Amino acid sequence: MAKSKKIIKHKNTPKVGKPPGSLIYLGPKKDVPISIKVIEYNQESFQESAPDSFTSDIKIQQEGKFTWIDVTGLHDIKLIENIGKAVNIHSLTLEDLLNVNQRPKIDIFHTYIYIVIQLLKFDEDHNTVESEQLSIILGSNYVITFLESPSDIFEVLKTRMRNHTGKIRNSSADYLAYAILDVVVDDYYDVIEKIGERIEAFEEILMLHPHKMQIQEIYSLKRELLQLRKAVWPIREIITKLDKDDTDIIKEKTTLYLRDLYDHSIQIIETAEIYRDLTSGLVDMYMSSTSHKLNEIIKVLTILSSIFIPLTFIAGVYGMNFKYMPELEWHYGYYLCLAAMGILAIMMIFYFKIKKWI
Amino acid sequence: MAKSKKIIKHKNTPKVGKPPGSLIYLGPKKDVPISIKVIEYNQESFQESAPDSFTSDIKIQQEGKFTWIDVTGLHDIKLIENIGKAVNIHSLTLEDLLNVNQRPKIDIFHTYIYIVIQLLKFDEDHNTVESEQLSIILGSNYVITFLESPSDIFEVLKTRMRNHTGKIRNSSADYLAYAILDVVVDDYYDVIEKIGERIEAFEEILMLHPHKMQIQEIYSLKRELLQLRKAVWPIREIITKLDKDDTDIIKEKTTLYLRDLYDHSIQIIETAEIYRDLTSGLVDMYMSSTSHKLNEIIKVLTILSSIFIPLTFIAGVYGMNFKYMPELEWHYGYYLCLAAMGILAIMMIFYFKIKKWI
Amino acid sequence: MAKSKKIIKHKNTPKVGKPPGSLIYLGPKKDVPISIKVIEYNQESFQESAPDSFTSDIKIQQEGKFTWIDVTGLHDIKLIENIGKAVNIHSLTLEDLLNVNQRPKIDIFHTYIYIVIQLLKFDEDHNTVESEQLSIILGSNYVITFLESPSDIFEVLKTRMRNHTGKIRNSSADYLAYAILDVVVDDYYDVIEKIGERIEAFEEILMLHPHKMQIQEIYSLKRELLQLRKAVWPIREIITKLDKDDTDIIKEKTTLYLRDLYDHSIQIIETAEIYRDLTSGLVDMYMSSTSHKLNEIIKVLTILSSIFIPLTFIAGVYGMNFKYMPELEWHYGYYLCLAAMGILAIMMIFYFKIKKWI
Amino acid sequence: MAKSKKIIKHKNTPKVGKPPGSLIYLGPKKDVPISIKVIEYNQESFQESAPDSFTSDIKIQQEGKFTWIDVTGLHDIKLIENIGKAVNIHSLTLEDLLNVNQRPKIDIFHTYIYIVIQLLKFDEDHNTVESEQLSIILGSNYVITFLESPSDIFEVLKTRMRNHTGKIRNSSADYLAYAILDVVVDDYYDVIEKIGERIEAFEEILMLHPHKMQIQEIYSLKRELLQLRKAVWPIREIITKLDKDDTDIIKEKTTLYLRDLYDHSIQIIETAEIYRDLTSGLVDMYMSSTSHKLNEIIKVLTILSSIFIPLTFIAGVYGMNFKYMPELEWHYGYYLCLAAMGILAIMMIFYFKIKKWI
Amino acid sequence: MAKSKKIIKHKNTPKVGKPPGSLIYLGPKKDVPISIKVIEYNQESFQESAPDSFTSDIKIQQEGKFTWIDVTGLHDIKLIENIGKAVNIHSLTLEDLLNVNQRPKIDIFHTYIYIVIQLLKFDEDHNTVESEQLSIILGSNYVITFLESPSDIFEVLKTRMRNHTGKIRNSSADYLAYAILDVVVDDYYDVIEKIGERIEAFEEILMLHPHKMQIQEIYSLKRELLQLRKAVWPIREIITKLDKDDTDIIKEKTTLYLRDLYDHSIQIIETAEIYRDLTSGLVDMYMSSTSHKLNEIIKVLTILSSIFIPLTFIAGVYGMNFKYMPELEWHYGYYLCLAAMGILAIMMIFYFKIKKWI
Repeated sequence: MAKSKKIIKHKNTPKVGKPPGSLIYLGPKKDVPISIKVIEYNQESFQESAPDSFTSDIKIQQEGKFTWIDVTGLHDIKLIENIGKAVNIHSLTLEDLLNVNQRPKIDIFHTYIYIVIQLLKFDEDHNTVESEQLSIILGSNYVITFLESPSDIFEVLKTRMRNHTGKIRNSSADYLAYAILDVVVDDYYDVIEKIGERIEAFEEILMLHPHKMQIQEIYSLKRELLQLRKAVWPIREIITKLDKDDTDIIKEKTTLYLRDLYDHSIQIIETAEIYRDLTSGLVDMYMSSTSHKLNEIIKVLTILSSIFIPLTFIAGVYGMNFKYMPELEWHYGYYLCLAAMGILAIMMIFYFKIKKWI
Repeated sequence: MAKSKKIIKHKNTPKVGKPPGSLIYLGPKKDVPISIKVIEYNQESFQESAPDSFTSDIKIQQEGKFTWIDVTGLHDIKLIENIGKAVNIHSLTLEDLLNVNQRPKIDIFHTYIYIVIQLLKFDEDHNTVESEQLSIILGSNYVITFLESPSDIFEVLKTRMRNHTGKIRNSSADYLAYAILDVVVDDYYDVIEKIGERIEAFEEILMLHPHKMQIQEIYSLKRELLQLRKAVWPIREIITKLDKDDTDIIKEKTTLYLRDLYDHSIQIIETAEIYRDLTSGLVDMYMSSTSHKLNEIIKVLTILSSIFIPLTFIAGVYGMNFKYMPELEWHYGYYLCLAAMGILAIMMIFYFKIKKWI
Repeated sequence: MAKSKKIIKHKNTPKVGKPPGSLIYLGPKKDVPISIKVIEYNQESFQESAPDSFTSDIKIQQEGKFTWIDVTGLHDIKLIENIGKAVNIHSLTLEDLLNVNQRPKIDIFHTYIYIVIQLLKFDEDHNTVESEQLSIILGSNYVITFLESPSDIFEVLKTRMRNHTGKIRNSSADYLAYAILDVVVDDYYDVIEKIGERIEAFEEILMLHPHKMQIQEIYSLKRELLQLRKAVWPIREIITKLDKDDTDIIKEKTTLYLRDLYDHSIQIIETAEIYRDLTSGLVDMYMSSTSHKLNEIIKVLTILSSIFIPLTFIAGVYGMNFKYMPELEWHYGYYLCLAAMGILAIMMIFYFKIKKWI
Repeated sequence: MAKSKKIIKHKNTPKVGKPPGSLIYLGPKKDVPISIKVIEYNQESFQESAPDSFTSDIKIQQEGKFTWIDVTGLHDIKLIENIGKAVNIHSLTLEDLLNVNQRPKIDIFHTYIYIVIQLLKFDEDHNTVESEQLSIILGSNYVITFLESPSDIFEVLKTRMRNHTGKIRNSSADYLAYAILDVVVDDYYDVIEKIGERIEAFEEILMLHPHKMQIQEIYSLKRELLQLRKAVWPIREIITKLDKDDTDIIKEKTTLYLRDLYDHSIQIIETAEIYRDLTSGLVDMYMSSTSHKLNEIIKVLTILSSIFIPLTFIAGVYGMNFKYMPELEWHYGYYLCLAAMGILAIMMIFYFKIKKWI
Repeated sequence: MAKSKKIIKHKNTPKVGKPPGSLIYLGPKKDVPISIKVIEYNQESFQESAPDSFTSDIKIQQEGKFTWIDVTGLHDIKLIENIGKAVNIHSLTLEDLLNVNQRPKIDIFHTYIYIVIQLLKFDEDHNTVESEQLSIILGSNYVITFLESPSDIFEVLKTRMRNHTGKIRNSSADYLAYAILDVVVDDYYDVIEKIGERIEAFEEILMLHPHKMQIQEIYSLKRELLQLRKAVWPIREIITKLDKDDTDIIKEKTTLYLRDLYDHSIQIIETAEIYRDLTSGLVDMYMSSTSHKLNEIIKVLTILSSIFIPLTFIAGVYGMNFKYMPELEWHYGYYLCLAAMGILAIMMIFYFKIKKWI
């Protein structure tokens, strides 16, 4: 059964009553270990380090090198503030990246671009879509990513960078940001495919084995599709704005890749819409299957009753105690009566055969 | 049970037949005490006062200071007119702020901006969303707010201003207006979360304990969501117009915060839409749960009838009074008859087992 | 019961086959008395007259004075033509004002503006929305209104003008046109509120006393809402075009009032949409209430059958006429049998208690 | 019963695999007689002729005269080609007018405007909307119309032209084209009114006499509405493009009439949408009426069973053959038993009265 | 029965985790034979060849000649790369044409236009729409097409070119690309017509012979329509972009044909939408047909029970063993009793006749 708790994974509770502009982490994951991974790369070199804390030793904006700082865990406000100061980030951005309930969005500032996006994973045990907020700060030669809890989603990128495959090492920071968005959107394909598989499974099973709980599972599929759409829909805007931004952060070469990403997000949204239409078809199928079952049950009741009620009436008649009932005296009265009953029963059965009920 | 009265909280009755331009308060709250609170503030100073009436002593437009006049209670027309004269407000604006049935909107005049917005509260006792109209008049160095009845919604702002936390004291009047809009929109999150909790509660309970009144409660949730959307939807326009206005009242620094508010209102609308889609899923679940229950009841009827109707028929046959019924004379006739009945019953039960009805 | 006749009040029958451009009145109200009321006004003076016919004595375009000609009854083609000639009105406009099946619209000509709008009244006896076409011709210093049948809708305006309250006397003809539109739209509020009251009444009664005819009444509410929307929807366009017109007929001062009217029409449309959504919820409630009632009925049948069918079977067994039935000989056989029946009945009742059917 | 064949009247089969640009008539009406009617007219003169074939004698573009060539029957490719050559028509246009499955559209060429539109007729016998394609080629001083099969739709126009009523004779060719479009759109009113009448008929009858076949008839109404919309919807575009074209073919005077036509097509579309919404209400009504009938039937069953099952049980008890059954010996035992049965029956009836089942 | 597997024919699995920019074929058809067909043509000459591999002998960009390279089978990466190098194709395009899960789209590069489109075939055995990706690369004097598996769809074009019918040989490469798109879209008509035929078949059969599996088949029709729409919808964009592109690849003469193609895709989309609306009507019909059948069954049960239950009760009464039952002693008691039963039965039947149940 689908676990039905928590429609909106992170409760939509921004800091009611808190002054706008104060830094507080509001997410649920306050006990994950904080980790900072610093990657400095260019075409020739690649250095990884994992410092315990963010100190001024970490140089973000270096000549001729690109830096990717990958932060996991958001509850250390001090750390976030230090990073914010180091690359001169607006307080609203810092606030947004701590408020893990953001709608995916893009804010373009003079010196950096701030992107919020949802990481989605299909949790097969509970049939729910788990989401997590990923914040990307993209400067002209650095990328900083903030995740709430540890994830191996970036591992594939790092491996590529280490092995110098793909184009990341040969390109500037904006391509790295694109590559990050690309792996995130790739995961959406995974989610929608899982949902698609479940819908296909329902198509097979609904007509043959309708079950009370299936309607709830269809409902939860629909809910997950709505949530998926809510996460993917704004990506179109994000990419459109990236495409049209007039900072020099996004290079022209990268926009071609962004358009590809745009096509992917459209494809995901369209597929989600098709699946949503199909779930309503599943409900129809379930309803029709249930009502078919009801018909079957009532048919059995009706056939049995129709056969035996008249027979029982005949038996009742000859069970009456009137003094003068000539049939009772007949020698073959009993057998004639049984024969009449048999003929009546056969006629009823024949009638139901004609009506195609049997 | 949800109290089902009053779909549109304040009846939509503008002054039918009254000349446009005459000042009449049409809301239901004519007996709340009128209160005026005057706050004068800048970075250095903060003064609060609560005069009994609005006299010419109250200076609204002072050099180097910002003034917030917080009026509660709208039925004193004279007071409203005096304030209107003091800051030169158009008669249509005065009319609008007394007509508490306004759709949220913004009117940009040369010297001030007029914003109408709905305060929403989820009334947990009646499961309804209570709304109240808040009018904000924003000039270059003053903010005037008009509320129908006393509320503590601004208390948090005043505390921040007293303690000089947050940015209000350091900023101009437009930031105060933004901060007011921000606390109002924060309350919407609260409302939508309450509705979300109720939907989750329904998901849990509908399949297991369907009840006649639940469909009415789902209906009232849907109604409240529609009302919420009606209140939030125009906020997008309001902020877009604030953003693009060409008066000098809104400073460039504040527009960044407005865009944040815009994102919040989009998020609320999207969540409301998801919830609305889900309520229709709840109706499906209720319907399916009811029809499942019907199936169960009819199954019991059918099984019992199917078992006993043939048996009763057999008993009826041997209750007949024919003279010549050889079985009746048999010594073990009775036991044979009972055995035959038992076998028939077992066969029926077996048949229902195969059909998976039992 | 709602009278279900006539979905579209005035049948949509423009003059099929008639040449475009010929003047024919096609409405149903050919026997109402024709009346012409002429009002000449400015800030200082106010004159009312009711001439029998339209003669050249009636001066429409006078220097320093505004004229309002209020015509009731459209079947005197000659009269319409005379008025048309007097103020130089295009033949298409004359045709449109006689064709009482117009969609609300605005046509802006060089010397006048032509507005068609629907007067709506909720007929509480038949639960239908009655509509009537109002044509307004607005010139630079005159307003001519054409109504199909007598109505007191303008009385309130005339009283205000007589008493010199409100702004009409102090303003130019475009303000009068606005004031006319304003009283018309005010009536829409009345209609939508009546529909809202009926929806609320249904919410109360549907669950408790579902009745076959209610579904038809909900259907007719939906139909009236669709019709209301059809009448109100084009008003947005009308006002937008008035706002942007480049004739000098609409003064800048009046546009502010028009925007207010625009807000009102949006509010009516939004409320109508909410009500439309709610009517589909009412259908759900009705359906669920009916199926609940069905469940109740079948439960009664099942419980009674389940209790008595086995008992009747037992009675049948001991009504058999086998020679050797030892129980029949027992002295307390009868009482034991009754006791067994009682216990069986109690067990069945207990079972239904556990199943929560009773 | 509605004849349910052929959703899309003319099968959508453009010439699969045929090279684009070859002239083939693909419609079903290959045996209608070909007819050519030539009308030459101006303000002073009017000449009609019906030549057997299209020869070079027929002058289309004459100084000071307008020509209308009205062709019926499309299967004579040679004829079409000759006309095409005579007025220099693009091969794509010729192809389009032979392919009778076109969506209504407009193509504006340098020397002529090509309009495709659907003639609709409501076939009352089969309750279907019959469509036929009308092609109009409008040059600066000629109009050529192509119809698949004979129709009297243009008769009214020709009569007007003969009698010199209306404006056609006084206007240029574009007004004639407008007048043709006008009679076509007038027929749409007829179709939608017929559909409206059927919907009203259903409203009356559905609740009282629900019948299995009605749902199919509602379905076919919906189908016809969808088809109507498909035919009318593109007319808005057509008129918009006519309005904005920069050829000199459409005179400014005519655009005013076109706008009127535009309003009519909007009104038809809106009414079709309302009717479509209402058909879904009809389905609700049918469903509710059916389930009401089911409730009634089951109520009868339940009431009868509830009354007689307990009585039959009592009769069964006193039909038992126990030796010692004291009641059987009582002198008034039988009458007491009957009385008890009567009281029980009255109590059951009373219970159903309270439950309002009877 | 419709085979219900695979909603989205090609699973939407782009290369999760693969670096963007690496060439891998991900489709299912890895064992089809690779074939290359090279056609060089102009007005005078036409040469076909089918080389085993792509060598530098194949000249794509020749003066005065157009070349069409028709590649079938995508799993030979080397081949694709060679072609890519020969005409200087961007790596993203190569990637896209190997990734057979693309949404239809157009990418306009400086020297070529890349179009992805879906070939659709209705598989009548499984009632599914089979799709295959067609990539078209259009340069100023060449067209390269890539198909996953062998198909005879282009045969008709090649025949026309061989026989020098149609306009392809007389036109430039862009007309060939148009002709290719045209045959693809022609196939969509075929698919939608097949779906339309199935819907018509359902209309005929649903009311008369409702069957459990039909709801599943309607569901699969809906799914195929959604898929069709997903394939056709983007074609509008593709053509719009082709129309507006500012490369010199598309000649002005061809845009006229493109607009025709645009009209066709609109017509397909509109028809698909109508069919989608109709499928929901089919579900209504099925549901109503099922519930009608239920009513019929229950009516039989009720009529039979209503007639025999009272009769059986009477028989039971006279089967009681009370000592003093005067009726039992009457000489004609038995016959009177039978007569009374007969009259009762006739009355019940009469009652049902009045109720129109029989």
